[in-house]
Amino acid sequence: MTVLDNISFSEALELCLKNANPKDISENIYINEALNRILAKDITAKRNSPVFTNSAMDGFAFKHSPNKKLKVIKTIYAGDKYEDFEIKDDECVRIMTGARVPESLDTVIPIEKCEEVTDEYIIIPEIKKGANVRLKGEEIKKGNVLIKKGETITPEIIAMLVSQGIVNIPVYTKLKIAILSTGNELKEPWESADEEEIYNVNSYSIQALLKKHGFESDIIGLIPDSLEKTVEYINNIKNDYDVIITSGGISFGDADFLYEAFKQNGLKEFFHGIMVKPGRPTMAGIMDNTFVFAMPGNPLSAYINTFALAIPTLKKLSGADKYYFQTVYAKNKSDFKANPKKDHTILGYYENGEWEVFNGYKYGSGMLTPLIKSNSLMLLNKGKEVIKKGEMLKIILFDTVFTNKNNLFNI
Amino acid sequence: MTVLDNISFSEALELCLKNANPKDISENIYINEALNRILAKDITAKRNSPVFTNSAMDGFAFKHSPNKKLKVIKTIYAGDKYEDFEIKDDECVRIMTGARVPESLDTVIPIEKCEEVTDEYIIIPEIKKGANVRLKGEEIKKGNVLIKKGETITPEIIAMLVSQGIVNIPVYTKLKIAILSTGNELKEPWESADEEEIYNVNSYSIQALLKKHGFESDIIGLIPDSLEKTVEYINNIKNDYDVIITSGGISFGDADFLYEAFKQNGLKEFFHGIMVKPGRPTMAGIMDNTFVFAMPGNPLSAYINTFALAIPTLKKLSGADKYYFQTVYAKNKSDFKANPKKDHTILGYYENGEWEVFNGYKYGSGMLTPLIKSNSLMLLNKGKEVIKKGEMLKIILFDTVFTNKNNLFNI
Repeated sequence: MTVLDNISFSEALELCLKNANPKDISENIYINEALNRILAKDITAKRNSPVFTNSAMDGFAFKHSPNKKLKVIKTIYAGDKYEDFEIKDDECVRIMTGARVPESLDTVIPIEKCEEVTDEYIIIPEIKKGANVRLKGEEIKKGNVLIKKGETITPEIIAMLVSQGIVNIPVYTKLKIAILSTGNELKEPWESADEEEIYNVNSYSIQALLKKHGFESDIIGLIPDSLEKTVEYINNIKNDYDVIITSGGISFGDADFLYEAFKQNGLKEFFHGIMVKPGRPTMAGIMDNTFVFAMPGNPLSAYINTFALAIPTLKKLSGADKYYFQTVYAKNKSDFKANPKKDHTILGYYENGEWEVFNGYKYGSGMLTPLIKSNSLMLLNKGKEVIKKGEMLKIILFDTVFTNKNNLFNI
Repeated sequence: MTVLDNISFSEALELCLKNANPKDISENIYINEALNRILAKDITAKRNSPVFTNSAMDGFAFKHSPNKKLKVIKTIYAGDKYEDFEIKDDECVRIMTGARVPESLDTVIPIEKCEEVTDEYIIIPEIKKGANVRLKGEEIKKGNVLIKKGETITPEIIAMLVSQGIVNIPVYTKLKIAILSTGNELKEPWESADEEEIYNVNSYSIQALLKKHGFESDIIGLIPDSLEKTVEYINNIKNDYDVIITSGGISFGDADFLYEAFKQNGLKEFFHGIMVKPGRPTMAGIMDNTFVFAMPGNPLSAYINTFALAIPTLKKLSGADKYYFQTVYAKNKSDFKANPKKDHTILGYYENGEWEVFNGYKYGSGMLTPLIKSNSLMLLNKGKEVIKKGEMLKIILFDTVFTNKNNLFNI
């Protein structure tokens, strides 16, 4: 009989992350497939931005000097073909926003700041040398690092890459992830089942959760029902996958041959059991080069631990340099209690800066309603019994959350 | 020459949303393709949950009565085949968590709450009738609405649907979206270009942004360079797409045949010009049944307005009942100024409950660096000039944001 560990949830997460080292394997892909992939090398700028020194305003360009009265000798429009020319200290050119500033000039005064403007001359006040001029390479200097290795490619980054004409993107290869479940009694969702038979929820919810966060995975079936067959089965698949995620079968009291089969295949576990409610029977470890997560059989717990432990670990394993969920701050809407001897992962609903625990934290881990009525998770360390109304809590949102209330605008 | 409207950003958004009515066309898809799709019909529960009345604890089940001493006559395990049987008021059964409670019994006392426990009898204190019993259908009642029309299908909902054996999912058909750009001078990203030539950033960044939010789109090319050809081109495509998104070509001073070509194709505009910085030259309207967005040519503005105006509108058009971005609250990290005569969409970086505007809000709309260095947007209504350090601001996050700092745990 397996005895479960009692480590904290935060230790469990740190153990997973500490052991999640990306493989140094990359590939070049075309930019239209790059969304959500992780950069495997720094990308350097191919172009300056601005590509040439240009005017930030409609106005007059001149060489900075003590002269107050300047003769207007020419007009330069955006898009004009560039030619340099002689210009005296008491001369200037009329120039449009975005038009190239000749190399001999250094300052632009906007029309509305001039003291007098005629077709022939302008009279100008004091103005700082270099004002209203956008220098070549001021935003981006050719050859400098533009985007760093480890960044996740967003639409914003795609905009930048296209603007630079960079279309072959070096990214880490995708993780190969296998999803397995235990429990020969489980029905697959397409099978017909008596009301009392139970469907294999976890494989599908874990796959959907991974997919939402950009990870592909294969549901490769059921763990066989004996130790011997399971040892062989795991031995057969372990070299084909970077990550194996199972659910069920490692709880205290379960037939524990799944754990044993992993051990016989060389598993080094990071932990086997977390002192958290829900989701205690959870294991993680490494087997040769394959990362193993054994999630609880209970669908609510399997979901929460895949979200809170596996997703950050998979982010790091796939090369991302940012892998902790960002939290948002929210005011707690109602008092509730938690067992102070355990850590807790608590479901609730975030809206407009407030957060409400699902049903007063009175829900069973056998339920799924708490999951579909929530949009966020709160991680609570042990030691606290009453969480008071009005406290500020740190909350992890499941997603870019949409709402049916407009609370968008400031002031 | 087109004269631009001066409506506010919030009015622009409301006009888009008011006119975005989903088409009543749905299809049935298999659950493994349902992630991110929008439910087109209410889904009713096929099963009760719990499927049978069961014990919430390891303990003893009995019929509630004044008896304090109860004879233990039997043990029921989870998974035991059900059979009902006679049981007297002074009798009880030992029962395990999850095991079915016989119909004639109504209350369970956990072992640890008994005053005395032997193999033959137990002595119990006062306990409420119905305690520790999970009633059939208590969480979910067969036939009741489980998930409502208009919900976006999340991994959480997939867990629930699989648990109910519901695999054919009625969803709204996907929007057909065309992306077009103006500007024959633009280079496609795979083309070689002199440093001074400009790439067609917008089509690719808009497509990536749409993809990230679950919308497919076709980049169908460039608007032709004359009014006559553009009228014909738009006429040819308008019946093939639910939405057309263009960028560039409707600014004050631009050759305005794109706007004219939409008008000649029957466009009814909601607005043409927003008093916002950046992104003023933006139009939205409807042409027969095709929704039209004309975004600015400037990549920064095109990105922001696609994010803040088009994404919510596309959510509503595709049938979602929640389409406003949720905001998070953050403390402003440094003073900055804005022109009080305009609305503003301001880029910045959210971390750990704080937000910092990009570079003191001193950035040009010709830049892309502000976009890749930010992870969030603040919408500011006109009327305010100084935004002070320490103010609480409402912020829209671009995404489920990851960070390299662990700020996850409460207490």
